[in-house]
Amino acid sequence: MKYVLVTGGVVSGLGKGVTASSIGVLLKACGLRVTSIKIDPYLNTDAGTMSPFEHGEVFVLDDGGEVDLDLGNYERFLDIKLTRDNNITTGKIYQAVINKERKGDYLGKTVQVVPHITDEIQDWIERVAMNPVDGTDKPADVCVIELGGTIGDIESMPFIEALGQFSYRVGPGNFCLVHVSLVPVLTVVGEQKTKPTQHSVRGLRGLGLMPDILACRSTQPLEENVKLKLSQFCQVPVISISF
Amino acid sequence: MKYVLVTGGVVSGLGKGVTASSIGVLLKACGLRVTSIKIDPYLNTDAGTMSPFEHGEVFVLDDGGEVDLDLGNYERFLDIKLTRDNNITTGKIYQAVINKERKGDYLGKTVQVVPHITDEIQDWIERVAMNPVDGTDKPADVCVIELGGTIGDIESMPFIEALGQFSYRVGPGNFCLVHVSLVPVLTVVGEQKTKPTQHSVRGLRGLGLMPDILACRSTQPLEENVKLKLSQFCQVPVISISF
Amino acid sequence: MKYVLVTGGVVSGLGKGVTASSIGVLLKACGLRVTSIKIDPYLNTDAGTMSPFEHGEVFVLDDGGEVDLDLGNYERFLDIKLTRDNNITTGKIYQAVINKERKGDYLGKTVQVVPHITDEIQDWIERVAMNPVDGTDKPADVCVIELGGTIGDIESMPFIEALGQFSYRVGPGNFCLVHVSLVPVLTVVGEQKTKPTQHSVRGLRGLGLMPDILACRSTQPLEENVKLKLSQFCQVPVISISF
Amino acid sequence: MKYVLVTGGVVSGLGKGVTASSIGVLLKACGLRVTSIKIDPYLNTDAGTMSPFEHGEVFVLDDGGEVDLDLGNYERFLDIKLTRDNNITTGKIYQAVINKERKGDYLGKTVQVVPHITDEIQDWIERVAMNPVDGTDKPADVCVIELGGTIGDIESMPFIEALGQFSYRVGPGNFCLVHVSLVPVLTVVGEQKTKPTQHSVRGLRGLGLMPDILACRSTQPLEENVKLKLSQFCQVPVISISF
Repeated sequence: MKYVLVTGGVVSGLGKGVTASSIGVLLKACGLRVTSIKIDPYLNTDAGTMSPFEHGEVFVLDDGGEVDLDLGNYERFLDIKLTRDNNITTGKIYQAVINKERKGDYLGKTVQVVPHITDEIQDWIERVAMNPVDGTDKPADVCVIELGGTIGDIESMPFIEALGQFSYRVGPGNFCLVHVSLVPVLTVVGEQKTKPTQHSVRGLRGLGLMPDILACRSTQPLEENVKLKLSQFCQVPVISISF
Repeated sequence: MKYVLVTGGVVSGLGKGVTASSIGVLLKACGLRVTSIKIDPYLNTDAGTMSPFEHGEVFVLDDGGEVDLDLGNYERFLDIKLTRDNNITTGKIYQAVINKERKGDYLGKTVQVVPHITDEIQDWIERVAMNPVDGTDKPADVCVIELGGTIGDIESMPFIEALGQFSYRVGPGNFCLVHVSLVPVLTVVGEQKTKPTQHSVRGLRGLGLMPDILACRSTQPLEENVKLKLSQFCQVPVISISF
Repeated sequence: MKYVLVTGGVVSGLGKGVTASSIGVLLKACGLRVTSIKIDPYLNTDAGTMSPFEHGEVFVLDDGGEVDLDLGNYERFLDIKLTRDNNITTGKIYQAVINKERKGDYLGKTVQVVPHITDEIQDWIERVAMNPVDGTDKPADVCVIELGGTIGDIESMPFIEALGQFSYRVGPGNFCLVHVSLVPVLTVVGEQKTKPTQHSVRGLRGLGLMPDILACRSTQPLEENVKLKLSQFCQVPVISISF
Repeated sequence: MKYVLVTGGVVSGLGKGVTASSIGVLLKACGLRVTSIKIDPYLNTDAGTMSPFEHGEVFVLDDGGEVDLDLGNYERFLDIKLTRDNNITTGKIYQAVINKERKGDYLGKTVQVVPHITDEIQDWIERVAMNPVDGTDKPADVCVIELGGTIGDIESMPFIEALGQFSYRVGPGNFCLVHVSLVPVLTVVGEQKTKPTQHSVRGLRGLGLMPDILACRSTQPLEENVKLKLSQFCQVPVISISF
């Protein structure tokens, strides 16, 4: 199993979901079987209790799971059937660990964010990635994981730490990190600013994740010197920086 | 109500509990009524499922709560009776927020670490601090709060963020932060090293907490120039740096 | 002498200079004598060798100093005469410290960024702030300091550290920090994003500087809930957050 | 040319110099030609003006350069002859860049820490590494670089950033990072504490440097579970963690 992780920098709402779906479609077009996981670093167990005015419509899966609309996109783009477990939330992970602790599964250990929450996240990802999603009984070749939220938030830290350990464990040939980031343009000057992206990449690296591809959102195509700057500061080849 | 927060830097096991108890005793000797809260940033709901070999003996409170030994120290040092709610753990806080979310108490909101977990922590502290603990029906004058763990850990971040907001809300005259830190001595040279303390104070400040007092642990009394260095880098008066 | 420091977050080019000049004009209108210092964290000794295509026109002071255009704005807005020393650059500070070291002024000490560079910055500010600038021989009442660059850059760190120590030394009544930050709006959704500002304030606080006022740049006036969010996360009263 | 970088975490004085010299001796015993560079992140141009009481004896090289004693160790351990340029200090680097700027070598550019200081550091390393040091006219096979100071200090940041870019540029097969760190033992409990090492590795990674080997200093051999913890959190194989 290969993994593609899509993370977002600077602000939310950059189109990580569309990026992740599109990557999935491209991989499928190459003849690979693709599955998908959406991670939402909020405490709600699922989208069932969330106001559509604040969070958008709820998508209902075949197993009755009420989830983020993004999972509907994955199903349509990739022609697959996902389950509620393909949507990981902070609430689900903490509830699972707290339940295990109450049952005594940790055998008297002090249960901590690292390694117990981070292990639970890794186990969950590996287990769900193996679920067949295309009507056959064969698992997919690639799992595209979208991490909601923004690098640098307290919310995201356990997930970033877990995914950093995960990328190290599955090895460099099996893990690809696509970082979607904002390159704001100051309208008066019209200049494309790379500092926010530099800082969010620094945050990623600090927790052990090195981006392989930068996908930059801007109101106009990236200038060549902006790409060079991002390449040098973020240690990503220019060819892997897209708009 | 006044609050004294005791945090720990660099490593755990520095004697934050003894420091917190001693501060309580001194305040009591000044004629103040003192209560205490222990915060443990682990996922265990209480110490009941924790192995005594790993975590030390469990202390059983009058209400049946199985808690950290530190709470026994507080009861003895301060001659008070605490409840299980005087021991806040990450597990208890997340469980409380997840339960509320399932009941629909957040009215469809996206429930997040900030502000929902951090608000829950602040509410809990304020509510428990008002519980009379000395056999009368009067609340205490001062609440000593001990935060377990170390600055800079993912575990502690929601608590630090919550306490930063809390210190800002109750105001500078009502909040005192005592930071207990290690000043390691390299045995070959015998030099006292301040860098680790500088870094943990930087971490505290980044989340909005400014130390008022530094309590440094070292194998020998702090040298005068070491105190001056700490004072300059940590923005704490020399008189407030103790050994 | 009172000090007003203007810093910038997220990206450069937000109009820190205009903000600083305007604050100066307002203070002058209140009957105060105002002077100004511009800090540029680049290595160039002055703007004389800098291309006008890259950095804008050079402004020539009465003493022959070739400086940033911002100093021209200060002279016109505040009707004062500045000297080349009112423009502090990284190059000037390091050159001054390296010269002193070569002359033996540090008496064999190991000369370091902290405290030697940071002390030089503080000394320079205090010395220049006392220079009369309005044709009389009286020093000003207030010195407005503009720090170029962005919080979180390696370039700015020695200055932020120095100014953090400086704010602590002159005391809370004599120092006011105005932080100018970008609140980007994602055009598709039209939502104002506060995360970048939260992160730059966290960076400021980590080095010991607490903002008193937030001046936010956005393409439309700040929504009320955006102000509340910024107030809570940045520990700044809502009344002190302006657009 | 292959590069071995030795950095230090938590505190200074851990024996980075001895570690670097020993690595050089081992490589030499394998039949490789070895040279060495010492980086000192202080402002002094050289050790000539530094008090021996504070900084130890000065070592005088054949070219008259007055340098850190460490360079004497390298000469003796590796049987080589170094020059004053094998000792890079912050003072030398900034002076070189300021001189170039005054001469107009940057053609009107805004001269900054990144990329101008960081490029100067990389150029210097590559140039000096090629100097033959063993009496022949052939350059060495391996250059051992010791970076003085501690990860996380403002002093070290330009060097870490430069070396992060450098490691990315020369490629993974040509660069090896050995991180020397303190694992303090609390004498009362006797427990080996890994948190400080975890934090300094996080700082390294944030600036783009991934350790290949951890060399831990402690008052007793590392326990097996301490090694496992460090391996998991620092993403370094257990076999590469030594005492």
